[in-house]
Amino acid sequence: MLIFPFFSGFSRVLALSVLLAFGAQAQADPLPSWNDGAAKQAIITFVNETTTRTSPSFVPPAERIATFDQDGTLWVEQPMYSQVMYILESVPRLVKAKPELAKVAPYSTVLEILRGERAAIAKLTLPDLEKLAMATLTGMSVDTFSAEAQKWLAAAKDPRWKKPYTELTYLPMQEVLKYLRANGYKTYIVTGGGQDFVRQYSEPVYGIPPEQVVGSAVGVKYGYTEDGKPFLTKEPKLLVNDNNAGKPEAIHLMIGRQPHIAFGNSTGDQQMLEYTKAGSGARLSLLVLHDDEKREYAYGPAQGLPDTKVGTFTQALYDEAKKQGWIVISMKNDWKNIFAFD
Amino acid sequence: MLIFPFFSGFSRVLALSVLLAFGAQAQADPLPSWNDGAAKQAIITFVNETTTRTSPSFVPPAERIATFDQDGTLWVEQPMYSQVMYILESVPRLVKAKPELAKVAPYSTVLEILRGERAAIAKLTLPDLEKLAMATLTGMSVDTFSAEAQKWLAAAKDPRWKKPYTELTYLPMQEVLKYLRANGYKTYIVTGGGQDFVRQYSEPVYGIPPEQVVGSAVGVKYGYTEDGKPFLTKEPKLLVNDNNAGKPEAIHLMIGRQPHIAFGNSTGDQQMLEYTKAGSGARLSLLVLHDDEKREYAYGPAQGLPDTKVGTFTQALYDEAKKQGWIVISMKNDWKNIFAFD
Repeated sequence: MLIFPFFSGFSRVLALSVLLAFGAQAQADPLPSWNDGAAKQAIITFVNETTTRTSPSFVPPAERIATFDQDGTLWVEQPMYSQVMYILESVPRLVKAKPELAKVAPYSTVLEILRGERAAIAKLTLPDLEKLAMATLTGMSVDTFSAEAQKWLAAAKDPRWKKPYTELTYLPMQEVLKYLRANGYKTYIVTGGGQDFVRQYSEPVYGIPPEQVVGSAVGVKYGYTEDGKPFLTKEPKLLVNDNNAGKPEAIHLMIGRQPHIAFGNSTGDQQMLEYTKAGSGARLSLLVLHDDEKREYAYGPAQGLPDTKVGTFTQALYDEAKKQGWIVISMKNDWKNIFAFD
Repeated sequence: MLIFPFFSGFSRVLALSVLLAFGAQAQADPLPSWNDGAAKQAIITFVNETTTRTSPSFVPPAERIATFDQDGTLWVEQPMYSQVMYILESVPRLVKAKPELAKVAPYSTVLEILRGERAAIAKLTLPDLEKLAMATLTGMSVDTFSAEAQKWLAAAKDPRWKKPYTELTYLPMQEVLKYLRANGYKTYIVTGGGQDFVRQYSEPVYGIPPEQVVGSAVGVKYGYTEDGKPFLTKEPKLLVNDNNAGKPEAIHLMIGRQPHIAFGNSTGDQQMLEYTKAGSGARLSLLVLHDDEKREYAYGPAQGLPDTKVGTFTQALYDEAKKQGWIVISMKNDWKNIFAFD
């Protein structure tokens, strides 16, 4: 009030507009796609408590780390992880280069699946999938891999929504990412999927730069082209297995700080959520429960939902969440909208 | 000019002060501890070219990655890397816990060295050092390691300057770190030293947060205390060897982007500097040459300096730098001051 007399007409209007704009922003709902409820309230309370300087749970900006599983937490993982689709759909390219593979399992099995014989998928064992992953994700330069993954991402479509996988992100989670970043949190993806694969789209899709993507990773080998130009080759050797206990281990390797808030949706995220809650001060762990058969999918044995073997959310994990004070997010009840295109 | 009449006295003064402050900032020397010369000019030209929107070499802010070797590039590495001092000075603690080690090499050799018998250092082989590193840096929880390293860092002193190692950083390089960050660059340490060790002080010493420290790393293993609290144990197994070709490999793993500017000082940095220059657009690689016997040290066989076996800068590396257009920084000629306490 004291300084107001110093302002003449135009400046006073400007000052008032600025004050009003700030006021409006502070009062706007940061999570408009969330229904009012315990989950939304827990997130907002956590952010307020950790970013208010006078709060006993205040967290200095440099320590504000938020980690998110990707498949099933930030985007759709059914009927199959998008990266597994990439691996399967890359097999024809392998077969084109080496036609003799067409008659050898597991390549021949994949060709059957791609021809529409979906039952053939049951023939693929975990070692088969690992073999296919190494064959399609390694043995080429980092740049060649990027170009191939980008080409696939631009063309591939989810079978149900007939949209690129990169459009099947959950709007409520996109709001959480933006809300946390607006409050000084550094947002990381911590995925069991391939680090190099997710880095291809994390920035345009989630606003998360490649250096904030932690994932499963093979080693790379430094070498030179014939004319002496350095390049990196993806080696068929797993260096980081970013699932289960591998998640906190990779968080230590890649970030070196314990997250203050973490989101997951399956047993593969359990250790990351435990590790997050084990830190001192305000910590929040959350699990997305896929219980919306109509708008998305309902699966995972928790609360009697079917086990699809993709993103398994067991009853034991549900019970642990309740016991440890993790927040279970019900897609059906907590999310007003699921996709931006709804 | 058009909007000026709208401002009354106070506001006009305010607007002018703001304009003047910005003007002054733009004209201030960002590298006052550097003498005018090719090295200083190359850094300033690089920053101007990559951050001016209309420049053909403009680099979008998200892609502005700068990497720095630590020992010998950001701080003193003679007569011995500080982390090797930490390893040696941790041996008495090991011996206290297991007295029988006092009579077994290489522990007995280290005790001789610490008693002042410096000649004993010649008895230590590389496998000895690796054994000592595993014994002193692993087999404990991440938190125990942090506490021990912090204690050592607070007490240990460099033998020549009688100051904590953390004060022996090069002022001209601190200016480069700040200058790059003020221009939107993300600054990373990429060190052959231990990632967990350097993360103990990177933030207070260089303003570089732990998640921007890339270093040699052992694996960690997730487990639980007896009362069920999760924790990570440092395992005696090297996961990332961040030297030579390991530097670009670790940059890919931890950052996923090719740096636009990189600083090193020894043959262990050669591949990082090659990799940086191999990117498209404006890229700058620089090498610090320790040629100042009086104010710091003069070593590395380049230009006939003595080979101390610590931070070796060979003549071949010097020749490659000249051939590839890397900038060689002469401590003697390019740096006006070396330390903040000078």
